[in-house]
Amino acid sequence: MTPVYDRVALIGLGLIAGSMAHAMRANGLAGEIVGTARSAETRDIARDIGLVDRVTDTAAEAVVGADLVVLAVPVGAMAAVAEDIAPHLAPGATVTDVGSVKRDVIAQVGPLLPDGVHFVPGHPLAGTEHSGPRSGFATLFRNRYTLLTPPEGSDPAAVARLRALWEGMGALVEEMDPDHHDLVLAVTSHTPHLIAYTMVGVADDLRRVTDSEVIKYSAAGFRDFTRIAASDPTMWRDVFLTNRDATLEILGRFTEELFALQRAIRTGDGDLLHDYFTRTRAIRRGILEAGQDTDAPNFGRGDGGGKAG
Amino acid sequence: MTPVYDRVALIGLGLIAGSMAHAMRANGLAGEIVGTARSAETRDIARDIGLVDRVTDTAAEAVVGADLVVLAVPVGAMAAVAEDIAPHLAPGATVTDVGSVKRDVIAQVGPLLPDGVHFVPGHPLAGTEHSGPRSGFATLFRNRYTLLTPPEGSDPAAVARLRALWEGMGALVEEMDPDHHDLVLAVTSHTPHLIAYTMVGVADDLRRVTDSEVIKYSAAGFRDFTRIAASDPTMWRDVFLTNRDATLEILGRFTEELFALQRAIRTGDGDLLHDYFTRTRAIRRGILEAGQDTDAPNFGRGDGGGKAG
Repeated sequence: MTPVYDRVALIGLGLIAGSMAHAMRANGLAGEIVGTARSAETRDIARDIGLVDRVTDTAAEAVVGADLVVLAVPVGAMAAVAEDIAPHLAPGATVTDVGSVKRDVIAQVGPLLPDGVHFVPGHPLAGTEHSGPRSGFATLFRNRYTLLTPPEGSDPAAVARLRALWEGMGALVEEMDPDHHDLVLAVTSHTPHLIAYTMVGVADDLRRVTDSEVIKYSAAGFRDFTRIAASDPTMWRDVFLTNRDATLEILGRFTEELFALQRAIRTGDGDLLHDYFTRTRAIRRGILEAGQDTDAPNFGRGDGGGKAG
Repeated sequence: MTPVYDRVALIGLGLIAGSMAHAMRANGLAGEIVGTARSAETRDIARDIGLVDRVTDTAAEAVVGADLVVLAVPVGAMAAVAEDIAPHLAPGATVTDVGSVKRDVIAQVGPLLPDGVHFVPGHPLAGTEHSGPRSGFATLFRNRYTLLTPPEGSDPAAVARLRALWEGMGALVEEMDPDHHDLVLAVTSHTPHLIAYTMVGVADDLRRVTDSEVIKYSAAGFRDFTRIAASDPTMWRDVFLTNRDATLEILGRFTEELFALQRAIRTGDGDLLHDYFTRTRAIRRGILEAGQDTDAPNFGRGDGGGKAG
């Protein structure tokens, strides 16, 4: 495949940037891949394992001559990076990011970038519970959505080129309004993560009561929560601080409904519970039909675990 | 293998009983397997697919001459079944159940059984989101815990024999006090399920706002919730109604912690969030070390989905 970009600079070398490096190489999408990270340890590991073609000590050095710059740092660190690299960006270069929140990133990063540089924010809906420079793999984005949220008036050619890169890495690409992105993600990702963190925290408190049984018997449903709640703490702190309004709105609806179910349990209203649990089954069918999961028992896990009372 | 029981009667032919039938056959654990279900449709399907050796129209017929009777119906239906079968049980037979709640089942079923019949309640911590007579498979219990909660004074030989059956089906068997079982399960299973149902219900309400996007972008964390929330509505209604006290206690702790995190988001307390999210990672490590999950990316799913912001 002809490279989509001649030189890609990855700022941050965690799960997403690392997976992009693997995927770009596997598909011949970049002439050269330059990378950097704030931590010297991460840079050393990246050099050791040859994660990218060249590791620089600073973001400013990394972006020199790059026609694509990818901000792959926690959302709260984006503005500082943008400030560092702004004077060194090549005219006509595209800057994108992979942050989980879009309105805040656009508000913070957009004004810092010089004229003549295209800013096309993005968000790949893919990940695992792992983080760090060793955690990436080439197929992470395959058949997963990547959402681009270009501001009005963006150069269509710059957007199309970034889309071609993501599609080359196997992603399904869609464009979306940033505010709408943040609301949809508050529902599909941010609030579920907060809830999972909370449930795991409660179990942790109870370990003194139940000893290690919470861990031992985790296969009965709790296990899926722990997986969600093992994601990178800094990334998630920043998500909640920057997508505050949408998360609080969805959380409000969540506690309202939870209290209604709690009341039904307390009063013994079995009909309400049964109706509610029947309704939620339909959503699951929709996800299977949309091809975003498999209905094979345990998804091919060999361990037979899953939902049990 | 020598059969552990000469004749096993399965009352109810859903996921658990069906998987027991497959597992007992695969491992030669029962001389004859008799089954019945309340619904004529379920009985017909069971006959068509040869799920058991013999399907009877009533529970009373099924238990005649059985040395093991398995109550595999929703917790709320156990007492009525026990009443039906009591006069027909063979002296010396063992009655067990597979209900997700133990104190309530013991209180309801125990007094209905005649003297000379052993009652050894049990609970296999295994399942999938599927239900019905076609949903079972022989390996469902392999390497999963099955908890037995025999009342004080139970016949050790009867308990040991039931243990041998479960171990023959691949399960790890432990004995536990019924009240303790109900508390541990409220943490590891019942409350997580209620929370997942609630989050999926909230998303369902919002579908009018976000159209099908909630489904389309479910891979970002929400998907795991929908899988949990697709389990059998009747079973789960009964779980919450019968394990009310423990579930409400854990729910109370959950909302307390959720409000603390919500407040941290509102006030911008990033340190609190970061500390909390760091602590929950340790639990995940414990589960991996206990062999109750795998840390392979996406657990061998081919679709690359997982946690993303």
